This record gives sequence, C-alpha cells and structure tokens, in this order.
Amino acid sequence: MRPPFYFKNNRLFCEDIDVTTFSETVPTPFYLYSKSEIEYNCQAVWQAAKQDSSVDFMPYYALKANYNPSILKLIKAQGFGADIVSGGELYFAEKTGFPADKTVFAGVGKTKEEIREAIQKGLHSINIESGEELKIVADIARKEQNTQRIAIRINPDIEAKTHAYISTGLHKNKFGISTEQAFELYIETQKYKNIIADGIHVHIGSQISLASPFKATGEYLKTFIQRLARKNIIIKFLDLGGGIGINYDDPLTNAQAPRTFIDTILPQYLASFSGLKLKLFVELGRSIIGSAGLLVSKVLIRKHTPLKQFMVVDGAINNLIRPSLYQAHHQIVPLEKGKYNSITADIVGPVCESGDFLAKNITIEDIPAGEKIAVGSAGAYGQALASNYNLRPTISEYLVNGTEVSTIFKGRTVADIANSYTW
Amino acid sequence: MRPPFYFKNNRLFCEDIDVTTFSETVPTPFYLYSKSEIEYNCQAVWQAAKQDSSVDFMPYYALKANYNPSILKLIKAQGFGADIVSGGELYFAEKTGFPADKTVFAGVGKTKEEIREAIQKGLHSINIESGEELKIVADIARKEQNTQRIAIRINPDIEAKTHAYISTGLHKNKFGISTEQAFELYIETQKYKNIIADGIHVHIGSQISLASPFKATGEYLKTFIQRLARKNIIIKFLDLGGGIGINYDDPLTNAQAPRTFIDTILPQYLASFSGLKLKLFVELGRSIIGSAGLLVSKVLIRKHTPLKQFMVVDGAINNLIRPSLYQAHHQIVPLEKGKYNSITADIVGPVCESGDFLAKNITIEDIPAGEKIAVGSAGAYGQALASNYNLRPTISEYLVNGTEVSTIFKGRTVADIANSYTW
Repeated sequence: MRPPFYFKNNRLFCEDIDVTTFSETVPTPFYLYSKSEIEYNCQAVWQAAKQDSSVDFMPYYALKANYNPSILKLIKAQGFGADIVSGGELYFAEKTGFPADKTVFAGVGKTKEEIREAIQKGLHSINIESGEELKIVADIARKEQNTQRIAIRINPDIEAKTHAYISTGLHKNKFGISTEQAFELYIETQKYKNIIADGIHVHIGSQISLASPFKATGEYLKTFIQRLARKNIIIKFLDLGGGIGINYDDPLTNAQAPRTFIDTILPQYLASFSGLKLKLFVELGRSIIGSAGLLVSKVLIRKHTPLKQFMVVDGAINNLIRPSLYQAHHQIVPLEKGKYNSITADIVGPVCESGDFLAKNITIEDIPAGEKIAVGSAGAYGQALASNYNLRPTISEYLVNGTEVSTIFKGRTVADIANSYTW
Repeated sequence: MRPPFYFKNNRLFCEDIDVTTFSETVPTPFYLYSKSEIEYNCQAVWQAAKQDSSVDFMPYYALKANYNPSILKLIKAQGFGADIVSGGELYFAEKTGFPADKTVFAGVGKTKEEIREAIQKGLHSINIESGEELKIVADIARKEQNTQRIAIRINPDIEAKTHAYISTGLHKNKFGISTEQAFELYIETQKYKNIIADGIHVHIGSQISLASPFKATGEYLKTFIQRLARKNIIIKFLDLGGGIGINYDDPLTNAQAPRTFIDTILPQYLASFSGLKLKLFVELGRSIIGSAGLLVSKVLIRKHTPLKQFMVVDGAINNLIRPSLYQAHHQIVPLEKGKYNSITADIVGPVCESGDFLAKNITIEDIPAGEKIAVGSAGAYGQALASNYNLRPTISEYLVNGTEVSTIFKGRTVADIANSYTW
C-alpha cells in the first residue's frame, strides 16, 4: 500500500494532497494527519489478532497520544475502545461515543472524584496501581452500591530498552506493583464484595521496537496467572498495555520501511497466550496515530556560523517537545526535494532557550527563508503536549482524506489567549 | 523584611494568608503568587543600579518567564520596560500598557510580520541575531520608510555554568553572533540608512548564581566597544541580558537565604561599565517572578514499595515541567509541618509517563492522601510552559496582597477545552 506521506516528482504528498500547495493556503506551523494511515494502523492491529483464531481480543486507543475529537471518532469507528487516564479523557471519550463498557481507566494518580465517576458510569475496568488505591476504589464502589471490575497493574521489572522517561515497567518507576505485593493484593481483593478482580494490567514502556521485552512479559504473566489460579483466583482478562514503537528514522523517504511495529510485535505478544481462555486487551496510542501525523514549518532564517549551521524555523518546542524532552529523533525533510545542496545543521525554533530544537546535527538541504520543512512521525505526543510558551498560540490541525483536507482544530490566536484573562 | 512564604506555627503562609486555609476554598493544583515579593524584587533591581550614580539604567521584564497580565501590570508599575520575543508577547505588553519605546524585541526567529509590526509601532530596539536577519530588518525598515534602532547580539563564548538547555552564550548555541562576525556586521550597518546600530545585546544564560561569568562578559564588552570606537562606531546602549539566578534550594524554610542573586550579582555587572557614558539595560524574568510563586498540590496516594517510596500528587509535568525538562530542583514542603515522620520519596504526578515527576529522592514528611504540599520558586517558567497533556486543564493562578487573594487566572475546564473543537 502507498505510504501516507511520500515524494512524487520531488514534492511531498499526504495521500493525494501536495503538501507544499496546501501549505500556501494556511499559516505555518501546522499539524497534518492522514486519515487512511490511522485506519491502516487500526486494521493492522485487528489483523495481528486474527492470526490466532483462538484469541479473544479487544484493542483500546490511548487518548493521551492525541485527543483531537475528529481523530478519536475515526479510531472509534474502527472498533477500538478507549484507554483513559484522567477525567478529561473520560469526558472526551464519552463525548466521542466510546461506550463506557469499552473504556478502561488507567493511571497512577486518580482523584476520588474521577474514581467515583468511573464507577457511576460503569467503565469496563479500573487499573489499580497500589494497595492504597485498591482500598479507595473498594470504598467508593461500596458507597455507590455498585460493583467495579479491576485489574491490578503489575510491574514485571522488565527493561523495555527505551528512553528512561517512557520506560515504565521497572521497580524504580512509579507505576505498578511488584509481583509479591500484587499477589497479596489479589488475595486481599477477595474480601471486597464490590470488587471483581479478574484482570491483570501490565505496561512496560513506550516506543519499543523489539518483540523480546513483550515475549518476556508474556512468559512472566503466564507464570503469575498459574500462581493465582492455585489460590482460586481466576484471571479472565489481560490488559497487556501498549508501547509498540513506530519508525522515526525515515518515515517520509522509505516506502519499504514498516511505519509501525504492530505487524512484527503484536502477533508474537498475543501468541504468548495462545490456547488460554483469556480476553486480551492492548492499549495503543503512538502506533495508531504517530505515523499518521506531520508537523509542517517554515524556515525563518538561516544562520551559518564558523562552528555550526542553524536552520531557524517557525515550529518550536511549544509545538513539539519530544526532541527536547526525550532526546527523540524525528525525520525532517524539505517539502520540495532536490533544489539545494545539503548541509549539516541544527533545526531550531524561535523560542528563547537552547532547549528549543527539533533536530541536532542532521543532514538537510540548505533551504532558504520562506520555504518549508516537514517533521515526520509527529502524530503522537506532539499537539498533545503543546504549550503556549513565549506566548505562541496552539497551532491548527488538518486531516487529509484522499483529495480533501478538513480543519480538525482551528489554531488559537493571541487574542483567544488574551480573552482567557481579565485585563 | 519578612519573606513572602514562611512558616508560622508550622503552617505555611503567603504574606498574611494561611495557605492551608486558602487551599480548602479552591481546587488543587493552583499557582499562588506574592505581590509584595514581585515588588521587592523589582525594587532590588533599582537599588542595585543606584549604587553607582553615574549609571544610566533601565530594567526590562522578560515576559517569557510569566505573562499573566496582572503580573505584567505590577511590574510595569515598578517602572520596568518589556523584553519580548514574539508577536504574542508584543500584544500582551502593549495591552498591559508598556510603552513601545520601552519595549525591546529579542529572539532568534522573528517572522517578517513580527518585524514589520515592531518597526511600525516604534519599539525601542530590535536585537539582531544574524547577518541574514540584519538584511531583513533593514529592508523592512526601508519599505516602511522608518528608522529602526538595533543591537546586535554578540555571543561572547562564556560558560554560564548552568543547565545546557538554558546556557545560551556559547558558540555552539543558536543565539548571537561571534565577535568577528559581529564586528563585520557593525561595519555593514553603516550602509543601511534606516538602521541605527548603536547598541549591543548579550545574554549568556539563565539561573546563574555567580558574578564571575557576568564580570567576564563586562570585560569582554568593554574591549569590543573600544574596538568598534576605533572604526567610528559609537555604542550608546548595552542590553546586558538577564540570567540572574534565584534560590531553588530552600526558599520556603530559610528566611535568611537571599531569594534572588540580584543584590550580589547586578551591582558587580553594572560596575564593569562605571564611568562610561552608556545606557545600561537588563532583561530580567526569573529573578523578578520566580521567588514570588508557589505551586500548591494535593497528595492523591502514597505508594510505598520495597525499593522506593512515591508520593503521588495532583500537580504534574503539565503544570510544572522544569524538573523533567531541565532536571531542575524545587523545594517541596507540606503546607503543615511537624505532623508526620520524614521519608525519602519521589514526588510524582498522575501523568502516564515516568518523566512526570516534581522531585526525586527528597526528604519529606510522609503526609497522607488529602493533605497538601507546596512547590517553591515556581513563579517563573511554571505556568508559562503549561500544557494540557493527559487532557489536564490549565490551572488557576491567585495573587496574594497582604490579607487579600485575587484570582488572576481562572483555570480552564475540560469543557472549555472541548469547546475549542468542532464535534
């Protein structure tokens, strides 16, 4: 299948849209998403699950990656449930039409109000992160005279081989509970009449490109399930987390490269549980929306110094913080290729700090002020972490569907920000 | 003078307000600022300049640190000008009443529209970051049939001894121009009729606590001014940047510690130019507003594991990103002291990633869910970098004036965020 972003006659396209031509009709910077790529990724998830017909499977979309309602609607239409981590995400999931019984509530710090709302609305399950939280959820369920299904999040202490900030499955991380503590908690759940504890949650990290950590997690879980069974605690569903990586290296220029590792990782992870009578959930964010998004930005100035070359663009840390916060690499290319010689440069934004960069020491054509670049694989954790640092308003988001482009978020203006204050 | 935040009978106060009592009347988390501290810091700046009566001095407030309009008005009332880095900041500065001729425009990536607006409005000066930018500014000034004063930002290659992301005065940084390039640019300015190039801009970094890098910068500038004078280029003003640090270690518990290093650093920096007939500007952000702000947050859950202790609070990376982005230390204390034993813990937020923490391995009383903590020195680069990550709405800001508290930003709600989309 044609990738969502590709070069034709040296011009970058998104589906059937010439990005340069489109970029001349709107202000920069902006985010551009491909509808077909979102659908393609969702379908890849279902395909992976179909490889083993014994699998009872349900995928959930992790709203944290990108919560634009138009994107949520597309993913819901693909049969996904919602993986939420806050009252805000519950509000958006519900408003988009995700049913409560296809919504799971995760997260290490839920407020009592959020837990009460989750129980009242009948969410499928709440993932429990500590003994203290189990007591709180049981107490609220009792007061609400309601029954709540839970999964305890186990921390398998498996190295996800990713950035420290997005590695979550180690004992030093704030997430989950150690095997021994979890075992005791499952025993403890038997005394809470309003709690059904027949699920396990695990999530070892993000942007993982290898199957081995997932296979190790699978083995770990099977052993733990057997151990619980010997105490007559029967696990019926596994929330296997997400964390499947995507191609950040060359998504815009390598049509052959896999855009996500769904195809290669997910079947192997699910195969760990083949033949077991378990419902299997996955929570995917980045691998659904990451490869479907592009950040388009204009060159403001070139700054050539004896020591270094800088390309100053109008996209900045407030639009895409991943390079600065996680030392993440994103591929950056000109919208029009083959016009200039290449240089080695830092791609930096206008924000007043050295931490404001989109890339360091990359090879890129030395395009002049006024021409534009695209930052690849920017659909996940891009706009979701946007700020108004340096009083730069949140930018617009557009969705491409074949030859059509629709505005799915109209960028705020400085006046909009000003209007949120009393002067 | 009494510090803005202090403990009385083991309860944290801001001016005359008991923070615990106030915190029970509003949702957490929130930012709380002290009016008297903002004024105190502004006055410390004027005091520092008065130590040498020959100094012709003007301080500018760097809006990037905190752009809340109520705070801007307070600082304007103290006689400060505005240091802006974007069209958005120009909008806010103008709307707050900062006069155009007391506004300086800095930043490494200005758009042509921003430059045109600056020239049309008659801003005092534009800081020039590259040869390409000088040509653009000269060209727009000519087309506008206007004259624009500029300062060229020189990069003195002086180590500011601070975090890499906020160290800006090295040749490897994106800011400024090397001495030799700058010398040639000043020569070049003589051919532009619409440009007055009688200023120099320099800024070596942020959160600097030593006078030595500033004194080195002073010596560097004096030599450069003399060199320009031999070519009949007469410098009349120096924009000396900012970067003066504040006390992040113990601002809430050490009444004796200086809250900012204005007193110790600024007089020494200004003394470098004693007797020279120069207008001296400084641009201060953090040292004006940093020590005046507090982030108040509630404990949601305690998570004790065999390996580590976690205190999960409702303030998170989306409210205060400095610990995660810059590995910054902020003092964190309970609002009520002396009630519990101390533990060593990570203070983390509810956001679903390991990068969401407010502090790591600090000693703090083991306060239970429902009680509250204060994060000190949070006035600068706190709310200014806030995001809605995990669909967490931007929080409220309050200003204390003696026994009075006023709402200076009413927190957004999830519904407000939802309303910015078409559903």
